Amino acid sequence: MGNAVKQRIGALQKLLAQENIDFYIVPTADYHSSEYVSDYFKMRAFLSGFTGSAGTLVVGNEEAGLWTDGRYFVQAEKELEGSGIVLYRMEEEGVPTIKEYLEKHVTEGQTIGFDGRVVSASFGKELEEELADKNVKFVYDRDVAAQLWKDRPAMPMSRLWIVPEESCGMRVEEKLSKVREKMTEEGVEHLLIAKLDDIMWLYNVRANDVEHNPVALSYTFLSMDAAVLFIQDAALTEETKAHLEKSGVSCQKYTDISDYLKNCAIKGKVWCSGADSNYMLYKLVQSRAELVDKENPTELLKAVKNPVELENIRRCYLEDSVVLTKFLFWMKENAGKVPMDELGVAKKLDAMRAEIPGFLDLSFETISAYKANAAMAHYSATQEHSDTIGADGFYLVDSGGQYEGGTTDVTRTVALGAVTDEMKLHFTKVACAMLRLADTKFLSGCTGRNLDIIAREPLWDCALDYKHGTGHGIGYILNVHEGPHRLSWQYKPEKKEAVLEEGMIVSDEPGMYVQDSHGIRTENIVEIVKESKNAYGQFMGFRHLTYVPIDLDAIDIQYMEPSDIRKLNAYHRQVFEKLAPYFAGKELEKLKYATRAV
Amino acid sequence: MGNAVKQRIGALQKLLAQENIDFYIVPTADYHSSEYVSDYFKMRAFLSGFTGSAGTLVVGNEEAGLWTDGRYFVQAEKELEGSGIVLYRMEEEGVPTIKEYLEKHVTEGQTIGFDGRVVSASFGKELEEELADKNVKFVYDRDVAAQLWKDRPAMPMSRLWIVPEESCGMRVEEKLSKVREKMTEEGVEHLLIAKLDDIMWLYNVRANDVEHNPVALSYTFLSMDAAVLFIQDAALTEETKAHLEKSGVSCQKYTDISDYLKNCAIKGKVWCSGADSNYMLYKLVQSRAELVDKENPTELLKAVKNPVELENIRRCYLEDSVVLTKFLFWMKENAGKVPMDELGVAKKLDAMRAEIPGFLDLSFETISAYKANAAMAHYSATQEHSDTIGADGFYLVDSGGQYEGGTTDVTRTVALGAVTDEMKLHFTKVACAMLRLADTKFLSGCTGRNLDIIAREPLWDCALDYKHGTGHGIGYILNVHEGPHRLSWQYKPEKKEAVLEEGMIVSDEPGMYVQDSHGIRTENIVEIVKESKNAYGQFMGFRHLTYVPIDLDAIDIQYMEPSDIRKLNAYHRQVFEKLAPYFAGKELEKLKYATRAV
Repeated sequence: MGNAVKQRIGALQKLLAQENIDFYIVPTADYHSSEYVSDYFKMRAFLSGFTGSAGTLVVGNEEAGLWTDGRYFVQAEKELEGSGIVLYRMEEEGVPTIKEYLEKHVTEGQTIGFDGRVVSASFGKELEEELADKNVKFVYDRDVAAQLWKDRPAMPMSRLWIVPEESCGMRVEEKLSKVREKMTEEGVEHLLIAKLDDIMWLYNVRANDVEHNPVALSYTFLSMDAAVLFIQDAALTEETKAHLEKSGVSCQKYTDISDYLKNCAIKGKVWCSGADSNYMLYKLVQSRAELVDKENPTELLKAVKNPVELENIRRCYLEDSVVLTKFLFWMKENAGKVPMDELGVAKKLDAMRAEIPGFLDLSFETISAYKANAAMAHYSATQEHSDTIGADGFYLVDSGGQYEGGTTDVTRTVALGAVTDEMKLHFTKVACAMLRLADTKFLSGCTGRNLDIIAREPLWDCALDYKHGTGHGIGYILNVHEGPHRLSWQYKPEKKEAVLEEGMIVSDEPGMYVQDSHGIRTENIVEIVKESKNAYGQFMGFRHLTYVPIDLDAIDIQYMEPSDIRKLNAYHRQVFEKLAPYFAGKELEKLKYATRAV
Repeated sequence: MGNAVKQRIGALQKLLAQENIDFYIVPTADYHSSEYVSDYFKMRAFLSGFTGSAGTLVVGNEEAGLWTDGRYFVQAEKELEGSGIVLYRMEEEGVPTIKEYLEKHVTEGQTIGFDGRVVSASFGKELEEELADKNVKFVYDRDVAAQLWKDRPAMPMSRLWIVPEESCGMRVEEKLSKVREKMTEEGVEHLLIAKLDDIMWLYNVRANDVEHNPVALSYTFLSMDAAVLFIQDAALTEETKAHLEKSGVSCQKYTDISDYLKNCAIKGKVWCSGADSNYMLYKLVQSRAELVDKENPTELLKAVKNPVELENIRRCYLEDSVVLTKFLFWMKENAGKVPMDELGVAKKLDAMRAEIPGFLDLSFETISAYKANAAMAHYSATQEHSDTIGADGFYLVDSGGQYEGGTTDVTRTVALGAVTDEMKLHFTKVACAMLRLADTKFLSGCTGRNLDIIAREPLWDCALDYKHGTGHGIGYILNVHEGPHRLSWQYKPEKKEAVLEEGMIVSDEPGMYVQDSHGIRTENIVEIVKESKNAYGQFMGFRHLTYVPIDLDAIDIQYMEPSDIRKLNAYHRQVFEKLAPYFAGKELEKLKYATRAV
C-alpha cells in the first residue's frame, strides 16, 4: 500500500507542477462539509491510503503531510507506513496546524490549490487571512486530482422518503416559519443552507446518499416567500414532490445551485454559514450580496428535540439497549467457547439490531475491537484484518442504529475473562466518569466546556486522559454526530459554544486507551432535562436514554467513592427495571445478576 | 439618605435638561478603569447613595437606574431605599443590561452623556455599536455632574517608592525588553498603557493613590526606543526620578497625556487596550494612528510570578496565615465572653497584621460580618453600623495585607457557638468545594471556565449556588484582584479566557449565602504548579499558599465523601506543619486540636 500511495503522490506532484500549484489541499469532505462522506468524495483516502474518517492531506513539491486527530494517531501511523507522507498529530505539542505549516512553507506569490467545493468557506477564509501578507493566489475552481482516480465510485443518488408527522412531530410549514422568524431577527432576506442534515430536518425527508447518514445531496435557498430545494432528479418521486409542493417548497436540479445563485433575484442580505458552506458557493454569494456569516438557524432548532421526537427516542433507545445487552451476554458466555472474530461478532450484532421493529440502517459502521485494537479509538475490523476473540481481556463495541424512532449510539466494554488490576482501575475510572457526568446538576447557561471536566477528573486525577471529546449531539433519524452543542474542554476562542438546553441529547463517552494493550469506552446517551428552579436559577440535569449494564466483572470498588458506588447501583437498578420486561427465564436471571448492587 | 439622593438626582436631571443630554451614565471608575477608585472618583456613590464597589448609575429624564451584581443585591436594596432609584440586578432573569436598557429607551437622535475619562473604551464602543441605528449623539468631553458635588475630595497624590530588586526579581530594563518583544510580535511601534497596576509592575514602583491599592495615577507611552511615564509632579522624588531615568524612562506631567498624544511623533500602529483605557484617550489615539486593541502585554507578564516573587509570596502568606489563625482562635475563645462587635474585631485583626514585618497596608478593607450580615457578600461594618458579636452563629472575615513580600487575601468563617444542621451542611459543602478545587489536576491548556464547576458541584448538587466567581488573580504588592485569569463558569463569548499557567496565583473561594440568616466563604490562595508530564500532556495542579485551619466545629462528615475527608485531613496536616513553628505552649495545643484528623 505504502508504495502505491508514494506513486500516487508523485503523480499528483507532477500534475501540480503542470498547473503551477505549489501546495494542494485535500480535506475529508463532500460539497456540504459533511462529517462523513460517501465514497465518491473519499479523495483524501484514495491519495494517502489513510482511511480514518477525519484528516487532511497537504501535498507540496517536496513533502506531503497528513493531519489527523488523536483518535487516529495509531491507525494513521500504520496506514501511512512506507508512503513517505509525514503524519502531523493535531494538537500535540509543537505540531503545526495546517495554517501554521503553510504560513511557514509558502513563499511570496506562490499558489495554493484545492477543489473549492470540498473546502469549507471558514477554512478558505482563514487561509486567506493567514497568508494575506504573502500575495498568495488561490486556485479553487477545479478538482485537479480527479484524473488520477480512474475507478472513482459514482456520485451517490438515493430516493428521498418522507418522515411522517407522528414521527417528526412538526410540519415543514411550522419549521419554515420558525426559520423565517430567525431570518427576520437577523435582518436577512435570504438563507442558503448547504448542510445536509439541516435540510433533511427542515423538509421532513430522509435519503441514503451517505453511508449510515440518511441524507440526500442537496442545497436549499430560502426567501421570505419561497423555498427552493436543489436535489438530484432521481431522488424525487411523485409522493415526495407532492409533499414538498404542499409545504411551499419547489425543486431544482442539484447541479444548478451555482447558476441559480448567479442569476436569481436577491434583495437584502443573505445568511450563509461559512462553517457549513463550501468556499466556492460562499464566494459566489459574497459577490452578489451582503453576506451574514452565522451558524444556520436550523442547527439549534434541530438539536432541541420536540416532545414527539423525545418520546420516540426514549422507546428507540430502550429497544436498542435490549439488543446490545443480549449481545453482550452472549459475548461473555461464548468467548473462548465458540470461534469468533471481531468482524463476525459485529455482523451478529448488526443482524440482531436489524430485527428491531423500525430498523432502517446502522447509524455508523460498528466498531468491534478486541484487546489492543480497541486502543485505536475508531478502529474498524475489516475482511482482511479481523482478530480472533478469546476468553480474556477487554472487548469494546461502539455501535448504533437508524430507526423510524431515532438514531442510537452506544459503547460498552466487557471483560471476556481475566483482566489485570490496571485494566480494572481504568475501567472503573471510566465508569465513574460516565456516571458522574450523567448525574451532574448544573445551572442553566452552562456549555459543554463547563461540564467536560466532571468526566475527565477521575482520569486526570491519575494523570490519565482520553484524547477525544466527552460528548456530541445526535440527530433524530439523522447523523450520529450533530451540533451545535458538544462536551469538550479545549478552549477555542473562535468557536461559539452552545448552551446546553432542555430537549437536547448528548453522548457521555469517556474512555481510556493504552497503546498495544487495551481500550475502554463507556458511552451512554443522555437527554438534557430541567431540574429544580429556585432563587439561584434554573438547574439542569441529564436523564439516561441508554440502559445497558456496565460489566461488574471489570469493576473494582476500591477505586470508587461511596457516591460512585451509589450512582452505579442506582443506574443498574434503572437498567433492570427498564429491561426486565424484555427478558425472561434464564436471561432475566442473568440480567438480575449483571445489574446487582455492589 | 434616600431623600437627599432623590434631590441630587433631581438636580442632575435639571442640569442634563440644560445640556440637552437625555441619558447620563456614571460608572464606578477613575480614568484608568481601576476596579477600586479613590474618593475623588466616587461620583456614582455620591449621586446614588449606593456605596458598593461595583455599580453603574444611569440617569434619564424619567427614571434613574442602578446596575450592580449579585454580591451587592442586598446591600444596594437597603442603600437605595427611598431614593427612587430603580435597582437592576445584573444577570438575573429578565433584567436588561445597561446596553439593552438604553437600546429600549433611547429614541432616534437623542444624546447620551458621560465623562469620557471614566468610561472604558470597550464600553463606549459597545454603546456606539448598540445604538448605531438610532443616530445617537455622544457627549463625553466633560464631567457634567461635577458641579453638584460641592465637598468633593481632592484628587489623590502620593509618593512613588521603588520596589528593590531582591523583592521584585526583575529589573525594569528586562521588563521593558519583554514588553517590546510582544510589541514586535504584534507589529506595533507604540504602546499606550493606562492600567495603573501594569504601570507600577513595569517600572518597579508603587504608591498609594487608591486606598489599599499601591498604585499612582499615571499613564505610560512606549516606543521601541523611548518610555514616557505621565505622573503627578508630587509623586516623584530625586530617588525615583533617578531610578526611572537609569531604566530609560522619562517623566511628564500626568495631565499632559492628551496633549502629548495629540502632538507626539507617531509612526506605525499603536497598541491600546480598549478594556483598560478610557474612551477619551482611545478616541484620541484612533484619530492619530491605526490602533491595535488587545489586552496589555504587561497583563500576562505580571500575572505569571517570577521565582523571587513566588518565594516572597510563600513566606508572606505563611506569616499572614499565622496572624489570622491566632485571631480566629481568639474569636472562638472570647465570643460571648468579651464584648465585641464587627468593626472592633476587624480593627483588632488589622492591628495584628500591622505587626507583621514588612507590613505596608491592608490589601482591602477587612470584611468582618456576623450572622446575616455575612450574607451580604461584600458587606462592611461601619462606625454607624457594627453588629455586636455573641457566642453563636457564624462569623466571616475576609481580609488581607500589603507587605513588602506580596499581597494577601484570605477568608474564613468560624462557628462561634451553636450552628444549625443546615448551616453545617452549607459550611461542609463549601469546605469540600474549596479543597476539591485546590486538589484538582488538570491538563495544561485549561482556563478557569473548565475548572469552576469542581468548586461549584458540591453546591449545585444540592441546588445551591454562590453568586460570585470562584477565583481571581492577585497582584504582587499590587491590586488584590488582577487578571487576566479567573475562575468562573459563565460563558461570555466576547471575553478572552486566559490559560492557567505555572506561577500564576489565584483565589479559591466558594461560598454559600442565605439572606437574613448566614453567609459562609472559605478562601485559600493557591499557586499554579506543574505536575507530571506524560504522553497525555503536561498536568497542572495547585499548591496552597494559605494555611489557616478550617473550623472543624462546623464540619459534619456525613456530608463528605471519604476523599473529601482525606483532603481535609491532609490540608490540616500541612497547616499544622507550616504553622507549628510560630506557636508555642497552649496555643500550639490549640493548633494541634484545630487541625486534628476527623
